[in-house]
Amino acid sequence: MNTLLGKLTFDANGLIPAIAQQHDTGEVLMMAWMNRDSIEETLKTGQVCYWSRSRRKLWRKGESSGQEQRLVELRLDCDGDTLLLLVDQKGVACHTGRRNCFFLAWRGGELVEIAKPLVAPEQLYK
Amino acid sequence: MNTLLGKLTFDANGLIPAIAQQHDTGEVLMMAWMNRDSIEETLKTGQVCYWSRSRRKLWRKGESSGQEQRLVELRLDCDGDTLLLLVDQKGVACHTGRRNCFFLAWRGGELVEIAKPLVAPEQLYK
Repeated sequence: MNTLLGKLTFDANGLIPAIAQQHDTGEVLMMAWMNRDSIEETLKTGQVCYWSRSRRKLWRKGESSGQEQRLVELRLDCDGDTLLLLVDQKGVACHTGRRNCFFLAWRGGELVEIAKPLVAPEQLYK
Repeated sequence: MNTLLGKLTFDANGLIPAIAQQHDTGEVLMMAWMNRDSIEETLKTGQVCYWSRSRRKLWRKGESSGQEQRLVELRLDCDGDTLLLLVDQKGVACHTGRRNCFFLAWRGGELVEIAKPLVAPEQLYK
């Protein structure tokens, strides 16, 4: 584990950005942040755990919504300052109820919503 | 353009992370940073331009190496604090000569190199 952590460059807040990608379809699900503790927990449990910058605590993805991410593989980039998490997403990744967070596209000079919620947020966080 | 910029949340340095994904294969190529100017230039020219944090200037991807990224679509996430760039990558994306930057995988307790350079870095930056 120290081999890995030693290769990583964390920012001034001790964080590193992590891209979550659905392992078999290539869909980019979301981007969030990890710290040392969340990386260790993720590798130990096999369930993705981020660091919530707003709540300032470990964010076990799916803990309240059930929309967990099982880690398939963790990769790092050439500079060691970004992680790519290949995951198996249970249900939807986005808190809005959409499969992924990138549902706004810039097309023809305006923002277009290109995906609808698959589940109502009230259902996710009840 | 202001509609878009107004939706985005930039960090304390005026930057926002941008994930580049090959539009037709789903391959995650790299993650880099953009500021307002680089987003405007990217949308104007159709060629991806980042902000280089180390060189502190606009980084027109491929300017010196020829490995340009043509923008296919720009998307933003639910919080407006991450961009997903669907691109058409010319040649390799990584400065090491690999197709993408995420060539180190954590497998069985060690870092494994899962992709070899397709072109020598000396060839890219000559």
